[in-house]
Amino acid sequence: MKMTIGNFLFMRLQQVGVEHVFGVPGDFNLQLLEQVKEVDGIEFIGTCNELNAAYAADGYARTKGIGALLTTYGVGDLSAVCGIAGSLAEHVPVVFISGVPPLYAMESRLRVHHSLAEGNFDNVMNCLKEFTVVNTRLTPNNAVEEIDCALHRCWKQKKPAYIQVPSNISYLMVDVPETKLKLELPASDPERLESSAKHIANLLNRTQRPALLVDIEVDRSGIAKGLSLLVNKKKIPYAALPTGKALLSEVHPLSLGVYMGEATTPSVKDVIKASDCLIVTEPCFIEGSPMVFPGGLPIRAHIYIRGYSVTVEKEVYEGVNAGDLINRLIDLVEASPATSIQSTSPADVFAPRPGAVLTQIYLWSRMGRFIRSGDIVLADNGTSNIALRDVQLPEDTRYISQLIWGAIGYSLPALLGSMMAAPDRRHILFIGDGSLQMTAQELSTILNLGLRPVIFLLNNRGYTIERFILGMYEVYNDIADWKYSALPQVFAPDVKAFTAIVKTEDDLEKVLAEVENSDCACFIELRLDPEDAPEALKTFGPLTAELDYGPRGPQHVFDKPRVSTKSD
Amino acid sequence: MKMTIGNFLFMRLQQVGVEHVFGVPGDFNLQLLEQVKEVDGIEFIGTCNELNAAYAADGYARTKGIGALLTTYGVGDLSAVCGIAGSLAEHVPVVFISGVPPLYAMESRLRVHHSLAEGNFDNVMNCLKEFTVVNTRLTPNNAVEEIDCALHRCWKQKKPAYIQVPSNISYLMVDVPETKLKLELPASDPERLESSAKHIANLLNRTQRPALLVDIEVDRSGIAKGLSLLVNKKKIPYAALPTGKALLSEVHPLSLGVYMGEATTPSVKDVIKASDCLIVTEPCFIEGSPMVFPGGLPIRAHIYIRGYSVTVEKEVYEGVNAGDLINRLIDLVEASPATSIQSTSPADVFAPRPGAVLTQIYLWSRMGRFIRSGDIVLADNGTSNIALRDVQLPEDTRYISQLIWGAIGYSLPALLGSMMAAPDRRHILFIGDGSLQMTAQELSTILNLGLRPVIFLLNNRGYTIERFILGMYEVYNDIADWKYSALPQVFAPDVKAFTAIVKTEDDLEKVLAEVENSDCACFIELRLDPEDAPEALKTFGPLTAELDYGPRGPQHVFDKPRVSTKSD
Repeated sequence: MKMTIGNFLFMRLQQVGVEHVFGVPGDFNLQLLEQVKEVDGIEFIGTCNELNAAYAADGYARTKGIGALLTTYGVGDLSAVCGIAGSLAEHVPVVFISGVPPLYAMESRLRVHHSLAEGNFDNVMNCLKEFTVVNTRLTPNNAVEEIDCALHRCWKQKKPAYIQVPSNISYLMVDVPETKLKLELPASDPERLESSAKHIANLLNRTQRPALLVDIEVDRSGIAKGLSLLVNKKKIPYAALPTGKALLSEVHPLSLGVYMGEATTPSVKDVIKASDCLIVTEPCFIEGSPMVFPGGLPIRAHIYIRGYSVTVEKEVYEGVNAGDLINRLIDLVEASPATSIQSTSPADVFAPRPGAVLTQIYLWSRMGRFIRSGDIVLADNGTSNIALRDVQLPEDTRYISQLIWGAIGYSLPALLGSMMAAPDRRHILFIGDGSLQMTAQELSTILNLGLRPVIFLLNNRGYTIERFILGMYEVYNDIADWKYSALPQVFAPDVKAFTAIVKTEDDLEKVLAEVENSDCACFIELRLDPEDAPEALKTFGPLTAELDYGPRGPQHVFDKPRVSTKSD
Repeated sequence: MKMTIGNFLFMRLQQVGVEHVFGVPGDFNLQLLEQVKEVDGIEFIGTCNELNAAYAADGYARTKGIGALLTTYGVGDLSAVCGIAGSLAEHVPVVFISGVPPLYAMESRLRVHHSLAEGNFDNVMNCLKEFTVVNTRLTPNNAVEEIDCALHRCWKQKKPAYIQVPSNISYLMVDVPETKLKLELPASDPERLESSAKHIANLLNRTQRPALLVDIEVDRSGIAKGLSLLVNKKKIPYAALPTGKALLSEVHPLSLGVYMGEATTPSVKDVIKASDCLIVTEPCFIEGSPMVFPGGLPIRAHIYIRGYSVTVEKEVYEGVNAGDLINRLIDLVEASPATSIQSTSPADVFAPRPGAVLTQIYLWSRMGRFIRSGDIVLADNGTSNIALRDVQLPEDTRYISQLIWGAIGYSLPALLGSMMAAPDRRHILFIGDGSLQMTAQELSTILNLGLRPVIFLLNNRGYTIERFILGMYEVYNDIADWKYSALPQVFAPDVKAFTAIVKTEDDLEKVLAEVENSDCACFIELRLDPEDAPEALKTFGPLTAELDYGPRGPQHVFDKPRVSTKSD
């Protein structure tokens, strides 16, 4: 079958589930924008800038399983690279396509715009190589295999792939396979699967105190449902790392809560530390207190589940697909009687006190009841994701946050992406003022596409997370106080949106009632005291200062010099 | 003398002329924000995001001679890298400081946030290595020399330097030199200077048809004044590349206008091609038609002036400082009688026709008269800088545009930077809607700092430059139509600003009169037809499509396939 290279690329993306490609036009990719249009079932979504496109593609991939980004050479690539590095850090499969200068221009080292104009076309590729698991420049000679290889590797490894498409080759015809591309995990090696499953089952059937730590892999390998069954049958109490939040139910009696190294609630930490059969799922970071347990875990895990291999005690079983393994384990393990372990109690319910100033403690308690089963909840870095860590989410809630890479501003474009992937699910975003200002323009795209998220903007006039680390009253932590509630109307004058400003507990109640009945996007500004913060953040701040700046850091009052430069 | 590493860094920056450091706080750089405060004469200016900070530092450096940027590790570095690559492409000396994780964390390969959390701390550095001429990680052992070396190299090469400061060492005391850092060009080798000057003077004194092409180096080497004297004495007609615009007077009788390869006006091109003594200044790109003259010049230059060397005919003289050379040449060359070459005539003056819809042709002609001597004019990529290429600017106008790297959105943060560098000069910005949306939030910083630029927003509801390349009526070139005139009030509710919407020629006249009398920032939205464009852009579009997409590109109507993916 003959097809243009560009059509083949977008057909393949569509076949693996990408229905929306995020990006920004540029002269080296306009031909690709034509070619997206030519393929059924896939569409280009223009964003305001490329970093936002990268975040949107990441959010899309988290909800849809794979995402795609399209930029123009140099300026676009390097604007997006922070987002792509985030996808790599967080194991998100994003296909990053860049329209690059014509092959002849690169081969002749011509001086072109969007380059350094000295003939070097390796520097952008070298940069992207650091943050992608595939990095390839298409030619008519390699395009077909490279595209399929990139999609396979991106999806299997759950990490970003980078494909450069020279602008003058994308309309060239090549021979392409007749068969549809199917991304499937390879079957497990039967012997290894059976041996590892028996090894684990033996351990589990003997154990007195099994425990499970949940992290990203549970989502990326699609084993959440199987793991729930296994946990229920064997009555295995589990805790989630912050990066594994809500992948298994947070309201199940076996759910212990959050595990985050030394900073874990003692009742949870004790269960993990005392386990005689600790199961962990990759990558098992100890985020939040990253430097406390350099080894990553309080005790050596007995069972370490990765996507395609599992370590049981000291034996590594290669070629074992996590899904196959969990399914086999469900058969093999003996059911245990009900555990005595109690789930943590649901958050207290506060009644709003008329006129009482809105506080963080009230807010998050109330939000725990506002979020409902089926919601997709996004939280930006800082106050929002630190507070939500301790808010129990209902069954079947999906939680999206960029906890490892931690780029503020990520969540607003990610909201766009996730909503395009699952437009029928209610999306709720919590974002601070500092984060919002990073990527604010993408609210325009969200509204103009007719999407209807519920956005809570936490306005406390500054980088609150930084205030608690250093410089509580310093100007460098201040943020300009925008008239936020006017943003929807400025960005999308013809789109209906509900906006409100909340200052008190009863304001919040009234506004939440309106949000529940709303048929449009909701943008709620929550006015909060700059010095108010979730309790977890108040602990996190000084600890971080200690780890970052050490004993001679500015958090310890000592004689700060005054350096005069006038005398010279 | 003992001093903390952080204080030393900022003292050195202050000594070489950096009074403002742009950036965003993050936990790995908060200690540095404290240390900026401790040094007299240097201040931190927070921006909304790091890309904007990089553009601001670039704009500052173009106006002040050197600039500085401060980010936090990973997320900040990679958000800023597009701006830094632009500084490299355009020969702008920016010192890029990154607060990075503590030394012990990097040495122990700990899993920390803002990294990929797998112990690799080389990837960000490797990426930045591609786009900086210095890239160093400070330790207490190397800090003093590395800082001085970085500043020297950055300033001398007019290219960005990257300095990582581990968060736990910046308050450590080190021994630092008592002497102030002075950045000075090394003196020329006396013999080489004299020989090269005589060689050139001989050529010039014999030549019948000298000509000069002006580019970036004239600014970066600070030889504009000297070159003006030389040109006047010898009556050398000169043309400027678009990247060398307004470095020498555009209204002088010897000024030929713009030189841009094949696309040059024949009268200008003929003078250059026919020259028997063509002088060029580095880098001498042929931007705008980058692939037309791969060799870079229509004829071999007789004299090629770089910062520290000069090529005269076939002889390369190393160790010759361009400033010394020009000064010596002014002495050596014989004065020529007045040339018969006429300057191009000033732009026609139109009288506004009441009710006549504003057009590009009217706009730019009018703007040529609005801009006055002493202004700093910034133009974003696309319509604005293509149109201004052909607008003669008055004497002593400074022009800032990012023509080589060509990142849209650059100019708004660059305006912030340049205004902080020269607050007493009137700044005028021309920016399109697509560009503005990329970096719009930085208008907040500009207004909240009390700066008073004149901003002309060209709103033609789309990427007009792309429309003329490909997809005139395509949705992918559309941009949401914001209520732009409300932006100042949203971003800076308490700051006075003059806003207006201009639709007709007489609207423009009225508004310009108000701008002239205004004592606050002015934000003027110019409503323009999406299909209207400067003539130069109409030529540029189809030429670019041909160069980018080639004979099989979509600009040639041929049977575009329809790829159905439904049948599988």
